[in-house]
Amino acid sequence: MVDILHQVGVRSTPDKVYGALTTIEGLEGWWTTNTTGDTDVGGVIAFRFGPGGFDMEVVESDRDKHVLWKVVDGPAEWIGTTIDWELRQDGDWTRVLFRHLGWREPVEFMHHCSTKWALYLMSLKGLIETGKGAPDPHDVKIDSWN
Amino acid sequence: MVDILHQVGVRSTPDKVYGALTTIEGLEGWWTTNTTGDTDVGGVIAFRFGPGGFDMEVVESDRDKHVLWKVVDGPAEWIGTTIDWELRQDGDWTRVLFRHLGWREPVEFMHHCSTKWALYLMSLKGLIETGKGAPDPHDVKIDSWN
Repeated sequence: MVDILHQVGVRSTPDKVYGALTTIEGLEGWWTTNTTGDTDVGGVIAFRFGPGGFDMEVVESDRDKHVLWKVVDGPAEWIGTTIDWELRQDGDWTRVLFRHLGWREPVEFMHHCSTKWALYLMSLKGLIETGKGAPDPHDVKIDSWN
Repeated sequence: MVDILHQVGVRSTPDKVYGALTTIEGLEGWWTTNTTGDTDVGGVIAFRFGPGGFDMEVVESDRDKHVLWKVVDGPAEWIGTTIDWELRQDGDWTRVLFRHLGWREPVEFMHHCSTKWALYLMSLKGLIETGKGAPDPHDVKIDSWN
């Protein structure tokens, strides 16, 4: 099992970050403009990017502290992996510890996804700090895949 | 042992990417403007960022294909880890498979470094594609640490 780990600091409060992870409007603002579904625990959120995308079940949601998603549909490499968001207040900042856990193999697609996650996290930071994120299809392109 | 993995695609030839990894001028253009040392195999390159930095021994350097550095001085978490650069021509692109291998523990500093590496790889891409990178101290800041 191999994992993708990231951190960004957002100059804002944990509730603002939590809101961007647990509302459709928030998620549309930084990850993909094509987001639908139910963000409550037990619900499934459908994230779509052009032809493909991911369905995530919301496994845990601890207000202003922690969110956990499980991938229930999407590319084979993603199914069964989990996306873990830990929020920590640190003075004027909220530290976001991000973990995409449980990849079976360190495939090339994982390398791509790791870099894309970093840029989507910067999009999340931008959305909260400046009101402007860079969700798909306005996201930063990193290679010939996307 | 845990690893940081990334990929970027650079719309250029492998020799341009290899040059940016194996010359002081290239390294200064995307990672840190304060870079000195010897980029030949067996040499040590000193990368400095404000008060700290990293000394990397060049372990392998296979023209236009592969570069491997070993961290010989720097933060305790980095010492003994390796930085592996694999370059692959893919049509008009060079795919850069980046691996920072051998972290002992998935500490919070590793989360931070993973995100910073993604942005420095985008700086490398920008340097080659547009002539303009974002090396320290002009790098993208991601949190209260840097």
